[in-house]
Amino acid sequence: MMHNNHVGLTIKYLALDGRAPRNDDVFSTLMAVVFGFFFLVSASFSIAKEEVDYVNPFIGTSNFGATHPGAQYPHGLASVAPFNVAFEEGKLNKFEKDAAWNSRVYIHENQFLTGFTHLNLSGVGCPEAGVINVMPTTGKLELNPEYYGSTYSNEIATPGYYSTILNDYDIQTEVTSTLRTGLSRFTYPKGESHIIVNLGLGLSNEQGASVKVVSNQEIEGMRTLGTFCYNADDVRPVYFVAKLSKPAKRFGVFKQAPAYKGVEGEWIGYNNTVKPYPNYQHTMAGDDIGAYFSFDLKDQEQVQIKVGLSFVSIDNARENLEKEQPRFAFESTRKKARKAWQEKLEKINVSGKDEDKTLFYTGLYHTLIHPNIIQDVNGQYPLMGRYGVGQTTKDQNRYSVFSLWDTNRNVHPLLSLIYPDLQSEMVNTMVGMYKESGWLPKWELYGMETQVMVGDPATPVIADTYLRGIQDFDVATAYEAMTKSADTILENPLRPENNDYLKLGYVPVDDEGPYDGSVSTSLEYFLADFSLGQLASALGKEQDAERYLARAQGYKKLYDPTTKMLRPKDRKGQWLTPYDPELGRNFEPAPGYIEGNAWNYRFYVPHDMPGLMVLLGGENEFETELSKTFTTDNFDMANEPDITYPFLFNYTNAHQSKTSEHVKALIEEHFHNTPGGLPGNDDTGTLSAWLVFSMMGIYPVSPADMDYAVFAPTFDKITLTLDKNYYEGKKLTIISSNRVDASQLHTRATFNGKPLETPFISHLELTKGGRLEIHR
Amino acid sequence: MMHNNHVGLTIKYLALDGRAPRNDDVFSTLMAVVFGFFFLVSASFSIAKEEVDYVNPFIGTSNFGATHPGAQYPHGLASVAPFNVAFEEGKLNKFEKDAAWNSRVYIHENQFLTGFTHLNLSGVGCPEAGVINVMPTTGKLELNPEYYGSTYSNEIATPGYYSTILNDYDIQTEVTSTLRTGLSRFTYPKGESHIIVNLGLGLSNEQGASVKVVSNQEIEGMRTLGTFCYNADDVRPVYFVAKLSKPAKRFGVFKQAPAYKGVEGEWIGYNNTVKPYPNYQHTMAGDDIGAYFSFDLKDQEQVQIKVGLSFVSIDNARENLEKEQPRFAFESTRKKARKAWQEKLEKINVSGKDEDKTLFYTGLYHTLIHPNIIQDVNGQYPLMGRYGVGQTTKDQNRYSVFSLWDTNRNVHPLLSLIYPDLQSEMVNTMVGMYKESGWLPKWELYGMETQVMVGDPATPVIADTYLRGIQDFDVATAYEAMTKSADTILENPLRPENNDYLKLGYVPVDDEGPYDGSVSTSLEYFLADFSLGQLASALGKEQDAERYLARAQGYKKLYDPTTKMLRPKDRKGQWLTPYDPELGRNFEPAPGYIEGNAWNYRFYVPHDMPGLMVLLGGENEFETELSKTFTTDNFDMANEPDITYPFLFNYTNAHQSKTSEHVKALIEEHFHNTPGGLPGNDDTGTLSAWLVFSMMGIYPVSPADMDYAVFAPTFDKITLTLDKNYYEGKKLTIISSNRVDASQLHTRATFNGKPLETPFISHLELTKGGRLEIHR
Repeated sequence: MMHNNHVGLTIKYLALDGRAPRNDDVFSTLMAVVFGFFFLVSASFSIAKEEVDYVNPFIGTSNFGATHPGAQYPHGLASVAPFNVAFEEGKLNKFEKDAAWNSRVYIHENQFLTGFTHLNLSGVGCPEAGVINVMPTTGKLELNPEYYGSTYSNEIATPGYYSTILNDYDIQTEVTSTLRTGLSRFTYPKGESHIIVNLGLGLSNEQGASVKVVSNQEIEGMRTLGTFCYNADDVRPVYFVAKLSKPAKRFGVFKQAPAYKGVEGEWIGYNNTVKPYPNYQHTMAGDDIGAYFSFDLKDQEQVQIKVGLSFVSIDNARENLEKEQPRFAFESTRKKARKAWQEKLEKINVSGKDEDKTLFYTGLYHTLIHPNIIQDVNGQYPLMGRYGVGQTTKDQNRYSVFSLWDTNRNVHPLLSLIYPDLQSEMVNTMVGMYKESGWLPKWELYGMETQVMVGDPATPVIADTYLRGIQDFDVATAYEAMTKSADTILENPLRPENNDYLKLGYVPVDDEGPYDGSVSTSLEYFLADFSLGQLASALGKEQDAERYLARAQGYKKLYDPTTKMLRPKDRKGQWLTPYDPELGRNFEPAPGYIEGNAWNYRFYVPHDMPGLMVLLGGENEFETELSKTFTTDNFDMANEPDITYPFLFNYTNAHQSKTSEHVKALIEEHFHNTPGGLPGNDDTGTLSAWLVFSMMGIYPVSPADMDYAVFAPTFDKITLTLDKNYYEGKKLTIISSNRVDASQLHTRATFNGKPLETPFISHLELTKGGRLEIHR
Repeated sequence: MMHNNHVGLTIKYLALDGRAPRNDDVFSTLMAVVFGFFFLVSASFSIAKEEVDYVNPFIGTSNFGATHPGAQYPHGLASVAPFNVAFEEGKLNKFEKDAAWNSRVYIHENQFLTGFTHLNLSGVGCPEAGVINVMPTTGKLELNPEYYGSTYSNEIATPGYYSTILNDYDIQTEVTSTLRTGLSRFTYPKGESHIIVNLGLGLSNEQGASVKVVSNQEIEGMRTLGTFCYNADDVRPVYFVAKLSKPAKRFGVFKQAPAYKGVEGEWIGYNNTVKPYPNYQHTMAGDDIGAYFSFDLKDQEQVQIKVGLSFVSIDNARENLEKEQPRFAFESTRKKARKAWQEKLEKINVSGKDEDKTLFYTGLYHTLIHPNIIQDVNGQYPLMGRYGVGQTTKDQNRYSVFSLWDTNRNVHPLLSLIYPDLQSEMVNTMVGMYKESGWLPKWELYGMETQVMVGDPATPVIADTYLRGIQDFDVATAYEAMTKSADTILENPLRPENNDYLKLGYVPVDDEGPYDGSVSTSLEYFLADFSLGQLASALGKEQDAERYLARAQGYKKLYDPTTKMLRPKDRKGQWLTPYDPELGRNFEPAPGYIEGNAWNYRFYVPHDMPGLMVLLGGENEFETELSKTFTTDNFDMANEPDITYPFLFNYTNAHQSKTSEHVKALIEEHFHNTPGGLPGNDDTGTLSAWLVFSMMGIYPVSPADMDYAVFAPTFDKITLTLDKNYYEGKKLTIISSNRVDASQLHTRATFNGKPLETPFISHLELTKGGRLEIHR
């Protein structure tokens, strides 16, 4: 997703990046063959295969998946990713970073690499970060990335490690990372060699950096970031310190010189070109600047560069670097990163085909990238939405990059199930953001609210977390934050339409901009109010509960019996006319809907499927219409509003098996062990979380609803080690079995030997541990 | 002058800026009328007229004089000047800053003002500084200077003060300064008002700045400067802190957004336009950035902004600001600046016409701007040519902006005569620069050697200073520095041609680039060697003296008896052929000569006029050829090589009166109380120093030659208060008189009643004080 709801900014059609053009398939397949070879080479090095060895970081690097194969840590602030989206458009690079709303630092079918970036987002829908670009070169110093870029070969990527050979230079590049730092090791041929740190070239729409050469082995500086999804107000710097393993023989900074006119242009020496400033040791500032270090090396000599980041200060970036990488120890750093991933991934053990394991663990890997930590080793972090520095308490992490319109659906429920300690820290972070800024986050990015997308998605996340039994946060303040958002009528940044909504019970289409999505927004509010009502009830606030739960029924006011759609309605109660429920299927503007059409939102009342079923005319009518979604090509696997649809068959009595059928078919169609093996933008792990749950045979149908839909898992056996602090630490085993009698209604699954009454099982039951046996 | 001799950089024709196109006259005259009115208004405020009241800072602001009418302190680091050289080219602004090698922040005939800059050069030949641009505006905030600029009226300028009304805003702007800080006072009409600090718009060819809003009353940052005269290596930042007298109601920073392509361009909101960042309080960096403060003001409410500069650090800029301007005291700051000028100017008292006094004191004012101090109030300054910070000793000033090819001729001799304490500090600075960088300065600018122009001009200055009796510097080190320059054969940045020169006795034309000027360079070396020889002799180093003085005779090898010119010669001793002594008259490339033709250099052997006279065939031949220079339009009053020519008639026996005649005529022709009242680029006071000496009836014909030529002064009476530390503190009075019998040879002048033997008087005699009576 990538819609910007920021007041006053005209927002248009943004979603193209999230979808795969259909003519891309042949190329993707070709690239998959090429890529598969190197992945096998890489994988074959492993002796005893651990969970981490199944991860293929190339998945999602084509087909607009927007992941990258770079080295990263679970929930790491820094990462080191190959950057191949600049220049050579239409030649070596099929997709250029500025050609559309390109949100990717790496695209698998591109071939022209211009460095390794140290702050990267994974699975987002707008260009951002992709900065602090480090490139090794040889020969005469060239500082223009258009000329110093290179093709590359022999790519290897495993969690926490990436390597490739730069063809133009015969340099082997290897990168790894820690939480807040990156480390690159370059193995050079004999001769004059360089490391270029480019602070101009990046993915972010913002420009501007400063850099200072501290010594012949060290630089420091900052790079401005922001304007994410074209929100002009979302801007802040990231600070860095970079250190070299070897003193440079020569060094300097550089800057893109402006285009001088007339005689000045003839005289200036560097006119509209990159100007070097050899030995410059003052601070240099500009739109397009960088630094370089040069060496005279022996053959196969290695030079390493480590880069520390901070969102607080250069001093903190230096401290991060010194604490996390006191030495230049590439192999041990790489091993630590691998171990960090393994410790996360081994919480789930699966038995099944290797190919499925690759999809599964890569999916899990992708759900563990964002939100990422943002505090420095000393605990300091940028205050939410304002200037100043916060301080974490001991051992508490502060997170950032909350794409909540996406992740409230399944990423946070997944974290709550498998990593409740992390989910607790994330909710604590969200409550902290409220304390600092006055509002819960919606699409938070590096300490700034970007106002991207619609709805009030923090409330479902927090309520859901509490209800799942994760309650070690400031519940009173969290509740205050959620009710503030739910009840503030005017100047409510989370619910700008709350005035109308509270009066009418829905958001009217009247004042809707071309991309506000009155129905979409209403549905998000209903779900948030349902979540808040459930929480209120759990907290014994019965009056609040009644009020919010009543609001959540507002969807019925948008149900149009004629079209059987949730249809845009104006303030006077008149339906939007003319009305085409197919409009929006190709992400064109569709009144009432954002990033989708009426079909995509038609069943998006996950908190009250029985109610919707009644409106539609009963179970059979519901099943017919739900099935029609798939047969008429109105189901979109690559975007969020409808990704719950396959599981909704579980709400019927007669058609429950269709859930398993659809899930199996969708996995087979859309998820592969290839770069194009994600159906579209991963949306900070949301599509991957869909895959992880789906392969496990359970899916959380609605935030604040404790029931998982149960259906046939992909694996023979899945074993979860449940957290001992939140769930008593028992094991949960999910078995795909023929022993369950599929012909008997309500008994397609058993839990600890007892048939399930319905094809759902409560989180609270499940997390007691035991054996869930599901008919395959 | 503005020639760049930097090795490896192709240097072409640069000197246009120093000359007045002939079709400019009508416009200049018109503007002079307009300007004269306001100057009279200004002057009429004075009650008892002091020396400072005669200064007209508008002189030199047209006709390529390159001075500015802004507020400045004697030898001040900071100044506040109206900046009217951007945009509206060919409409409101006749001359645009980027249209040529425009070296001026203010041009009198221009009409579109875009702010007040706080670091400005006066009388230089290449664009530099003109940065930290402050502009007051009203109404809806506009951040693009092309749109927020304004015409202006009611200009007033006096030493240390400038005022004008901005027509578009009805704002009265008044500016004043201290040594290292500027202060602006803006009187606004009622309503929404702004102060914009633009760090992009400037005269310097370098870009790049950083800025941080510290509070609603303060910003800090830096601006990159350099590439003076297209020397790519000459780059460094200036730091600043700015404080407001009133807290701003709203504030922010801004940045020129890049040109985004395609869909991004449609979406970005600020595409290729100025983007505001309201409330932004991180550091912003970029090529074209700034900050703004907004207010809601009552009618005639005043807001002041003070700006402190430093070449060392932001902290030092803040300390400079706090120490020199602890409060916002406009009137007392203005008075202090006026007093500082008065204390300098009153060292000379003249009796004569007001118009002449204006020319004289304005000339003296222009000689007291550069070199300017560069150390901070805590004594720190940037080390010469390298990174790091030096520290002055107590009460010692460190100077910068040494345009020595120009100023060695008369500015430093003038300082030695009238302000020997300053000249001592300047020589101490030059010796310090040698200690720090290994070489004496040539064209030093803000701590960097720019390598502009040719020759070895520090040696004449230092030797001359010593010989004049100013000897309180490290003479041993200075001598070491001068001999290093004189004798180093290879890799000698001051004398890159020294290998050939020492072998041949002249610089051969063989390897000359189009603007190296083998004859010009030779002549500079001869003069430097003469100076060094004179100093060696004074120091009792007779062998050295002999050697250097012998070298100084090398000019004879360049004398061509056929053309009677000092003619380019190759290594084999062959004259350059074909040869046109007129070539170069219009500043076009002329082999052998820089910024001039053969005529302009023909008599530039000031240290041995008798010798040259012999070569030319005796006194009459000499006088004929010298006079021909003037009658054939081969004399250029606006450039340095030939400005000594009018005084050379004193070397004849029969034609001494021609000196007075020529000097009188040249003053009348070229120097006026109008913006165009300098003949061309003031060259950091060199043309003005010519005027000051000329009006006093004495002129130092050659560095290291203690004789002043004596001729008819402009004034009836001139009284100098000689410095008591260097010259026993007596008074010197120069009288223009008819009592001297003009018919008697050798007695056109008397000193203390005694007729002069020749029309010269030694500095050492003169500074004993007394009465010099000269026939008018």
